[in-house]
Formats: sequence, C-alpha cells, structure tokens
Amino acid sequence: MKHLIVINPNSSQTVTDGIDAAVAPLRSFGIPIRCLTLSEGPKGIESQRQADLTIAPMLALAEAQADAAGYVIACFGDPGLHALRDQTRLPVVGIQEAAVMTALTLGQRFGVIAILPTSIPRHLRAFGAMGVLGRLAGDRALGLGVADLAEPDKTLDAMIATGRRLRDKDGADVLIMGCAGMARYRATLEEATGLPVVEPTQSAVSMALGQIRLNMSHASTRSNHA
Amino acid sequence: MKHLIVINPNSSQTVTDGIDAAVAPLRSFGIPIRCLTLSEGPKGIESQRQADLTIAPMLALAEAQADAAGYVIACFGDPGLHALRDQTRLPVVGIQEAAVMTALTLGQRFGVIAILPTSIPRHLRAFGAMGVLGRLAGDRALGLGVADLAEPDKTLDAMIATGRRLRDKDGADVLIMGCAGMARYRATLEEATGLPVVEPTQSAVSMALGQIRLNMSHASTRSNHA
Amino acid sequence: MKHLIVINPNSSQTVTDGIDAAVAPLRSFGIPIRCLTLSEGPKGIESQRQADLTIAPMLALAEAQADAAGYVIACFGDPGLHALRDQTRLPVVGIQEAAVMTALTLGQRFGVIAILPTSIPRHLRAFGAMGVLGRLAGDRALGLGVADLAEPDKTLDAMIATGRRLRDKDGADVLIMGCAGMARYRATLEEATGLPVVEPTQSAVSMALGQIRLNMSHASTRSNHA
Amino acid sequence: MKHLIVINPNSSQTVTDGIDAAVAPLRSFGIPIRCLTLSEGPKGIESQRQADLTIAPMLALAEAQADAAGYVIACFGDPGLHALRDQTRLPVVGIQEAAVMTALTLGQRFGVIAILPTSIPRHLRAFGAMGVLGRLAGDRALGLGVADLAEPDKTLDAMIATGRRLRDKDGADVLIMGCAGMARYRATLEEATGLPVVEPTQSAVSMALGQIRLNMSHASTRSNHA
Amino acid sequence: MKHLIVINPNSSQTVTDGIDAAVAPLRSFGIPIRCLTLSEGPKGIESQRQADLTIAPMLALAEAQADAAGYVIACFGDPGLHALRDQTRLPVVGIQEAAVMTALTLGQRFGVIAILPTSIPRHLRAFGAMGVLGRLAGDRALGLGVADLAEPDKTLDAMIATGRRLRDKDGADVLIMGCAGMARYRATLEEATGLPVVEPTQSAVSMALGQIRLNMSHASTRSNHA
Amino acid sequence: MKHLIVINPNSSQTVTDGIDAAVAPLRSFGIPIRCLTLSEGPKGIESQRQADLTIAPMLALAEAQADAAGYVIACFGDPGLHALRDQTRLPVVGIQEAAVMTALTLGQRFGVIAILPTSIPRHLRAFGAMGVLGRLAGDRALGLGVADLAEPDKTLDAMIATGRRLRDKDGADVLIMGCAGMARYRATLEEATGLPVVEPTQSAVSMALGQIRLNMSHASTRSNHA
Repeated sequence: MKHLIVINPNSSQTVTDGIDAAVAPLRSFGIPIRCLTLSEGPKGIESQRQADLTIAPMLALAEAQADAAGYVIACFGDPGLHALRDQTRLPVVGIQEAAVMTALTLGQRFGVIAILPTSIPRHLRAFGAMGVLGRLAGDRALGLGVADLAEPDKTLDAMIATGRRLRDKDGADVLIMGCAGMARYRATLEEATGLPVVEPTQSAVSMALGQIRLNMSHASTRSNHA
Repeated sequence: MKHLIVINPNSSQTVTDGIDAAVAPLRSFGIPIRCLTLSEGPKGIESQRQADLTIAPMLALAEAQADAAGYVIACFGDPGLHALRDQTRLPVVGIQEAAVMTALTLGQRFGVIAILPTSIPRHLRAFGAMGVLGRLAGDRALGLGVADLAEPDKTLDAMIATGRRLRDKDGADVLIMGCAGMARYRATLEEATGLPVVEPTQSAVSMALGQIRLNMSHASTRSNHA
Repeated sequence: MKHLIVINPNSSQTVTDGIDAAVAPLRSFGIPIRCLTLSEGPKGIESQRQADLTIAPMLALAEAQADAAGYVIACFGDPGLHALRDQTRLPVVGIQEAAVMTALTLGQRFGVIAILPTSIPRHLRAFGAMGVLGRLAGDRALGLGVADLAEPDKTLDAMIATGRRLRDKDGADVLIMGCAGMARYRATLEEATGLPVVEPTQSAVSMALGQIRLNMSHASTRSNHA
Repeated sequence: MKHLIVINPNSSQTVTDGIDAAVAPLRSFGIPIRCLTLSEGPKGIESQRQADLTIAPMLALAEAQADAAGYVIACFGDPGLHALRDQTRLPVVGIQEAAVMTALTLGQRFGVIAILPTSIPRHLRAFGAMGVLGRLAGDRALGLGVADLAEPDKTLDAMIATGRRLRDKDGADVLIMGCAGMARYRATLEEATGLPVVEPTQSAVSMALGQIRLNMSHASTRSNHA
Repeated sequence: MKHLIVINPNSSQTVTDGIDAAVAPLRSFGIPIRCLTLSEGPKGIESQRQADLTIAPMLALAEAQADAAGYVIACFGDPGLHALRDQTRLPVVGIQEAAVMTALTLGQRFGVIAILPTSIPRHLRAFGAMGVLGRLAGDRALGLGVADLAEPDKTLDAMIATGRRLRDKDGADVLIMGCAGMARYRATLEEATGLPVVEPTQSAVSMALGQIRLNMSHASTRSNHA
Repeated sequence: MKHLIVINPNSSQTVTDGIDAAVAPLRSFGIPIRCLTLSEGPKGIESQRQADLTIAPMLALAEAQADAAGYVIACFGDPGLHALRDQTRLPVVGIQEAAVMTALTLGQRFGVIAILPTSIPRHLRAFGAMGVLGRLAGDRALGLGVADLAEPDKTLDAMIATGRRLRDKDGADVLIMGCAGMARYRATLEEATGLPVVEPTQSAVSMALGQIRLNMSHASTRSNHA
C-alpha cells in the first residue's frame, strides 16, 4: 500500500518522533504515513547553508521510497521543496508553505514564532516568494539560547510570550509555529493567547493527504518530467 | 455522528449533485459529508447583489444543522464566509479561498476560469483581500451565453480554450475552476492544458476535513463569540 | 428635486443625526441630502455577520427612494456597497472607501481609529480589496468597553490617545475616523494630534455630490444592468 | 471672495479653456473657480524634465493669488504637487492623484489613456508612489504623431481604440483620460467603450471644492510650515 | 579625459567635501571623479519644495560639464534624477536609488536613518515609486534639532540609537544613511549596530563607475532624445 | 593579491569563457578577477533540482580559494547565494540579484529573456523574494529547442524577437539577459530593441568590485559567523 512519506531533514530522532505524534489524528484518514529522519542532516538546521546541504541526501532518500504516494518535507524553510517537485510527479508539500496557506484561512494577519533570529530573513524570503507578505503581522524569535531550548518549560514560556507579543504589538490574529516537532505545545499556546495556532507538520500532512486522495499534482510535473 | 456540512447557496440541485460527486473520494477519510441546497438562493449567482442576498438564509440553514462538525460554503465568491465564522466556532471554509490556497502550493501563477465576465471584479476584490494578487496570472471568462452554458460540450470546449489562453497569454501554471459543480471536467481539462487544475469544492472539503480532525478553529471564534 | 440619499445601516437615530450634522457644510453645494436610518439594522454594527444582515433591508430602502440622485452607505465597512451598485446606475459611495481615497490625497500613510478591535480584520480585508495596504500605517482600536463609549469625554480622550499612537508608533500622517456619526470630534482631534483627520461621511457625501453633478457612474452599471 | 485656483502648467490657452469648460458643472457648488495658464510653461509637457521645470514658476504663480481658497495643478503628472503643499496650508489637489482616487471608487481595475508613450514610465512611478499599482489594468498611449493630435477626429478615434484595448486586452473596467483639456470627449468615450471615464480636472476640482468647504488640510501643512 | 560628475545640490561645501572623502577609495578604479557644489542650492534640503527648486540650476550645471562621462545627484531624495536622464544619454545615478538597490543585496529588510522627520513621507513616495516598500523595515529620524546636528558627537550618538531602534524594533538587517556627506560615521555605525551600513554616495559612485565602464545607458535616452 | 572569484556553477568551459570576456572591461578597476568552472555542475542548469545540487560543490570550491576578496555566483537563479553568505564574511553577489538591482536604475519595468520556459517559475519566486514583482514587465522564454540553442544566429534572432515582444506587449523599457555567457549579444540586442540591456555577469562583477573596494559586507556575516 502506498504511503505518505514525511522527511525530517535534520538528524534528530526526537524531532521525528514529535512529528509522528503530531500527525497521529490524521492516520484515521486511511492513508498510511511514514516519518523518516535524514541521517545525513545536521542536528538542527540553523542557517540557509545547512538547509541547502540537506537537499542532495533528502532527494536520494525520497527517491528510495518505492511505495511513496506523496511527500512532506518537514523543516520550516522547505529545503528542496521545488527540487523534489522536479524529481517526482507525486504531491510534495512543504511544511512552511502549508502552514502559511492554512493560516491565511484562519485569520487575517499571521504571526510566526521563530526559534532563532537568524531564521527570520530566510522566512521573509520565502513569504516574499509566496507573495503573502501583505498578510504577515510579524515574525519574532524566542530569544532563547541553546541550553534554554532544551528545557520544555522555558521553551513553552517563551513561545507564549512571543505569541502574545505578536498578537498585541504586531496585530496577529493567527499564529504559526515556525518549527517542526513541537505540536505538543499547540493547545496550550492556543489557550494562552486566545488565537488559532497552526502546527506546520499537521497542516502539511493534512494537505498532502487531500492531494493524494484527489489525485492532484503540481506544475513542475508537467514541465520538467520526460 | 458529526457531519461536515457543505452548503450550495444557489437553488440548483444539479449543482449540489455535482458537488456531492466531486467530494466522493474524500468520504474515505471517515468524516460524513452532507451537501445541502439553499432553497432560498437564486438559480445561479451572477452578481454581488445575488451573492449578498444568500447570506441571511444561508446562516439560518447552517445554524439549523445540529450535527455540524464544520461547514463549507460552496459558491465561488464565498458569500457569508466571515459572517458564518462570526456565528460558529466550528471550521468554516470557503471554496474560493480554499481553491486559491491550494493552487498556491501547486504552481507559481494561478489562472482562474470564470463563468461570467461580471464575476471578475468580485474575484479581484477577493484576491486583494486575501493578499495574493501578486500570484494571479489572469482571470478570464468563458464567453458563453446562457444557452451555451447548458450544453456540456460547449462548456468543456470553452473551459479548455480559456485554460489554454491563461497558460499561453497570461503565464498561468496552475488553473482554478471558478465555479462549483463542474468537477467532472477536471481530468479532461488537466489533460488538455497540461496544467494542474484545482476544483474548488474538492479543495475546500479536503481542507475542512483536516481542520475538523485536527480540532482547529478560526480567529473570529475568539473575538466575536461570548 | 433629486436627493442624495445617505443610509445609516444601523438603527441608531443618534448616529444618523450626527451624520446629518457632519454633512451640513456640503448642503451649500445645492443638491439636497436626505439621511435615513435603517430601522431593521442593529443598534450598532460590531461583526461581519451583523453588517451582512443589513444588506437586504438596505437594498430595499434604497430602492424605495424614488427621488434618489445617488447613495451613500454610511457604515465604516461599506456593507452592501457593490450589491447596491448592482441594483442602480446612480452613484453609490461607501464611507470607508471614500475616506481612504480622501486620506491618500492628504498624507502618505493613513492611520485608522477603530471603535472595536474586532473590526480591524474587516478593515484589513477591505483595504486589501482596495489595494491600498501599502499606504496603511496602522489600524488601532480605542480599547473602550460599551459603557465607556457612551461617555463623550472618555471617547474623545481615547480617540486622541489612539491618534497619537498611530502618529508616533506607526508613522501615520493622516488619520481616518473609523466610524460614522462622530464628526463633532474632528476639529479637536486635528488640534490634538497635529494631523489631518478624515471624517468618512463628509468625504463620502462630498465625493457623491461631485459624481452626481458630473453625471458619473460606476462600472457595475454597465455590466449587470439590463 | 476666495477662489479655487486651477493652474494649467503648460502655456496653451486652448488647454486652459478646455479645463474651464470641463469644470463648468461644478460652478454651481458656489465656490468661484479661476483657471490660469502658466505663461512660462512649455507648449505641452512631454518629459519629466519639462514637468520639473514648470515647478518654480508655478509656485510663484500660486503664491501670487491672494484670494486663493485652494489649488488644483492641472497637468497629468502632478508636477510640484508636494512642493506646493510645502508652500501653503490650503488644499492642493493634483489631477493625476484625484483621477486615480476617483477611478478606484468606480471600477476594480483602471486603465489610463496616455497621450505619449514617453509619459508611461512617469505615470508608473506616480502610481507606485501612490501605492495603487495593484489596481492598474494598463497604461497605453494613443500612438499618434504631433500632427495627428491636432486633429480632433483622429484624436477621438485613437482614444476610443485605446480605451477598448484597455478594456478587452488589459481588463480595465474604468478609464482615466491621461491629460487635461479633453473633457469634451468624455461622454463619447463612455458611450463607445461602455465604461465609466474619469476626466482628471473634473475629479480634481470636485475633490478640491469638497476639501475647501469642509475646511480640510494636508499633512505637509503641519510639518513644514512655521 | 572624461569625468564622473558628482553634484551636491545643496550649497554646503562641507557636505561636498564629505562626499569627496567618501568616494576616495573608488578613485583607484581609474575614472576621474569631480564633486561639485550647487551654489544656487539651499544650505540644506529640508522639503520637497526646496528639493524641486534645485532642479533647474542643477540641470544647467550638469549641462555645463563638457567632459562628463556620467553623473551622480548627491542628495537623498534624488531631485531631478529623471529630468537629468531626459537631458543626457550618459549614466545618471541618484544616491537614494543606488543606496536602496545596494542595500537590497546586503540584507532582507532595510532601515533608513533620516535626518529630519519631514523627509520621511518623501522617502516613502520614492520607495513606492521604486516598488521596494515590501523590503522596508522602517524609516526613522534622528530627532535632533538644528543646533544638535552641528555637533558631530550628538549626531553620531543619535545615528547609533536610531540604527539600533531600526534593528531591534523594526527588524532591519541592513541600514542606509539617509543623507550625503556623513560617510566618516559608517564604520562606527557598523560596529555599534552589528549591521552593514550603506553610505549612499559611495554606492552611487560605485554604480555609476561600473555603468560608465560597461557603456551602459538608461531608458530615457532612447525615448526622449532626438 | 586578493581576487574576485567568479564561479560558473555549470560545467561548460565555453560559458566560463563567455563570462571572462564579458567582464574584461572591468579589469581596469584594478582588482584581479578569476573565473572558475564548477566541474561537478551539469552541462547546463535547467531545473531547480539541478541548481540546488550545485550548491555543495560550489561551497567547497569557494572555500578553497584562499586569495578570495569576494565572490560572484554566475548562474541566473543564484543557487547557493545565501548559503555562501553564511559561509564567508566576504562580499557575495548573485548575477540574478545584481542584474535586477541594476535594471531597476535603468528603466521603470524590466523584461527578462529566459532561455527555457521551465526557468520562469524559478525567476518569479526569486523576484518575489526580492520584493520587486511590481517592477516586472514580463519574463518570456526564447522558445528554442536544444539544437537551435547551439546555433548563435538562431539564438540571437530569438533574443531580439523576445526582447521586442517584452517591449511591445509587456511594456518593458529595460531588458535583462536571463543567462550567463552571452554578453557578446548585448550591443546588438540594445541596437535592435532600442532598450538598455543588462548582462548579469557584468552587473554582478561591477557590484562586487565596488563592495570589495568599499569594504562592505552583508547581513549574514553578522548573524551566522562565530
């Protein structure tokens, strides 16, 4: 039976496990989902350079999945999204793109909770390429050091503070978690901010399952494939 | 058991039947879908005035569905979308909004096949409100009279011609069908144009099912409900 | 003699009286102005749902004015603006649209003083549909409860504070009052902020009188009328 | 009694006479209107260089009008618009800016009929500064040589052909005449294209009269005056 | 031998000397650079009116330079930029335009340090005409009075404070000095903010030298010259 | 002595030779320029997948240049631009970005001559990320097959025809050659279209030399380096 393949392009199994848990409610849709860790990836992706260097092994890993019905690239930043679309006719969804498109249906201005400040220019380039900057309320980083990010309580507190700042200073009425693997905080964050919160792997898997079931494909299929 | 309620705001049962057929593949996701015709609606919605006048009865029809898990408003133009979000905490998806957000993940510039030329300014206002005009390749009408629209062959031929014009003159690499109830033409249109084609009721129902399963809600819920 | 008909779509006669006083200086232009209250409207319009539900009775009220030379819809949010344009060849001006177009000639970035925070997403959708978001400095709510809004002094103080915040934090150099019926505060607000202040019913009536005198019409006339 | 001063910055009295005739219907508003020709201006303004060189004498001419209640700069291109606002607290309206703001209330996408192709980049810079490029359908030149422009029939025919091209190829649903002094063609052009046509001096004078009567001022007043 | 002519349109020789020093490193490129002061200019340009009034004498000064290989207009605001392009086929670079285009290659969102608050609307109109407002983080003035601006220490302190505010509040990751003649502060400002700083006369001269060497020209040459 | 390193990320020495010839006039600026071919690259880059796969070897090649003063990535599409900025504090210029920024100073709307139609969505994503889509007139492909592209005459004819189409149908007043290594056609193309033509490697090298001489750096330097 064909599977939706979710690739975590960093090498952290913990993150992959978080993704697997996040998408559990969508297993009832009847299409099996397999979450993979890219062993060649860095522990975490902190720069465009690291992101770009995951593309070659990610493409190889994707190609090796003979039973694929579609793919999700599970790194906020969508490294290799269009490259993979050049490689396969199957649906390919990036979690950043899917999160933004979902957020646009839930509120008028979206705020993004970035893990690191260095990610923000990457996000802005991506939102510009998507043509949705007019809907962006703000993109703010947690402001935590690496040590603090390892502590769940500090991380959650910082996410709530950042979400409230996006709501109160920037005018966001919907939030996007700018990372994979933290879906377990979604409900608390919604509660604490009073805003809808988009967890990007959930949005991406949901969108991919729909595209698979509806037999949809993307534009690259038509132009780059033989 | 809770249902996704799909409301066709015009009074044509044929259109509702077309919607019902269009979303059939998504029934396997396990959430029951019920498609309703708004008996108070006009035969077809051709102006903003007609669209706006469907809102009051549509809101009443929606409210009367005690087993609703969420709603899809199945008219390209999304009449009453935000009004219904003010009325309920449940997911509410408009087919125009869902079609656009889906198209943005399938190609870089979307083209819209409008049934009537008078719809185009309405579409443009909506795309402006969505903040996605920078991704629009073009929005073109079929150029058929009412009599011709009743003939499936003429309609399909005009859709293909319009789709090719959007591709060749306007640079579209993904197409949106700007109407409900014509999903049966989707595969032929994809074949004839070589482009992905988004059928809006399919996209909306797919998106709504995901939001229901993931327990998501929208911003209006937070601010306008008691 | 033909009249410009100004319709207040909420049922508050006090608001209608405020509009009537606001447009008094424009009576010297020689075209009679008649201000009507929509008795079927809510006391005040606080949501998109309430706004949309005024459209049907507003259209009927407009149609009943046999001596109309043109119309102004006097609710910031312009409910039914395009629907009324579908119904009549006469000039139809919305106060939100007119206020924005006027503000764009008076300063580079406009700030909007919203009565309620829940109105802001509605405003943003409208500004997006108008294609003018690049000129928006900010849209901020007074932050008053219903009781406070009944007290003129508290309202005026909050308007001044909000106007100053828009000027100092957001960079507005022209302000728009995001409501009808408060023209009496305009001069004080201009004095206190040092910025031009656009009162939307004044702008709309001024624009409508010009269109009537110049025998102008709108695009819907051409396409939707028989 | 205070007058609205309309300055034609080219030295053609014929153009000034055309403006005077265009605004005749607005004389009934009760504020006297005086149309002046800038004797130092060129015969016609065909480049940014020519436009910029009219600013110094225009500012002097404006200053010399002791009975001014406000000003209209009657050249499509609005030379010196912001300079004059720096010089006076009185309302100052440019015909290009006023035409655009008026067109935005009459249709969704405006088309501009330019006299000369070299004007188009100037227009685009101005529309960009106004932040309204998202509403522009197209800007097309008549394609006539100087000799042809002297013949009314050829000019009108070219305006009609250009207007139809803007409507049919570019999707305009409202047209702007990109020049002063040709209001006599407006009705015919509306008839021939089926679209509303904005004559810019009419729009500007109408807007200026409203601002005068309502005692409105612009942002420069506040910041640049002593 | 042909020279690049740099025109300071204000009459301050100190500013011209500052420009001359700023571009010294670029003299090694082998094209001689001559910096001129416009004696007819005001001491400093503080309004659009002052800027516009420099155009006529600036065009004359430019024309008088028989050995020109190209021009730089060295006032942030680029007065007469397009007028001079209408006058000559040679490269013409404005320091504002060049600074922005350079900044766009160095960071994702640029912040502008304005000398005076009244300049900001002028800047925004220019950025709008350039079509780059989506990349603007913010434009903030030093907040100094004329007396303070004469003191280098106070000016530098204010530039640093403003640069940090642009970085921390507005999200700028590259800064533009919104004035000519202050290149001596660039290194300190980069150090203090940790951001790249664009000095506009340096960027403009660098760009002009490249265009001269590569024998490039601009669009106006083609359309407006005989 | 430090060199500007120009990396052609495809493996065609002919293209590298073309680049070397293109930038010859800029050697007089006194900074040595070394053009390298990426032996690991494909013969030509035709898809996002191919572009992304050049990044890893390009980064390694760049790192191996011990005498680098700065870098130019010489593929229209700028693969690895931001990744290389993450790797080095030295100036890094992409030819696509530099070409666009240069074109924006030469005309109001730029047209892009693409070699292959499949490149256009990549270009559009890049222009969106740069925030300059409002200045794009059009992006059109030559419409040649691989065999034809090997024939210089057919290629030049197609470039001229495409340039004229961009000028006449799309309103471009400046053209960008969307490829490296074809500078030899620039003068003929300018002559045949009457428009300025930007050759991207020339623009990039010119910009990089200025940044090197002025000791400029980019934002990534600050945030991602130790």
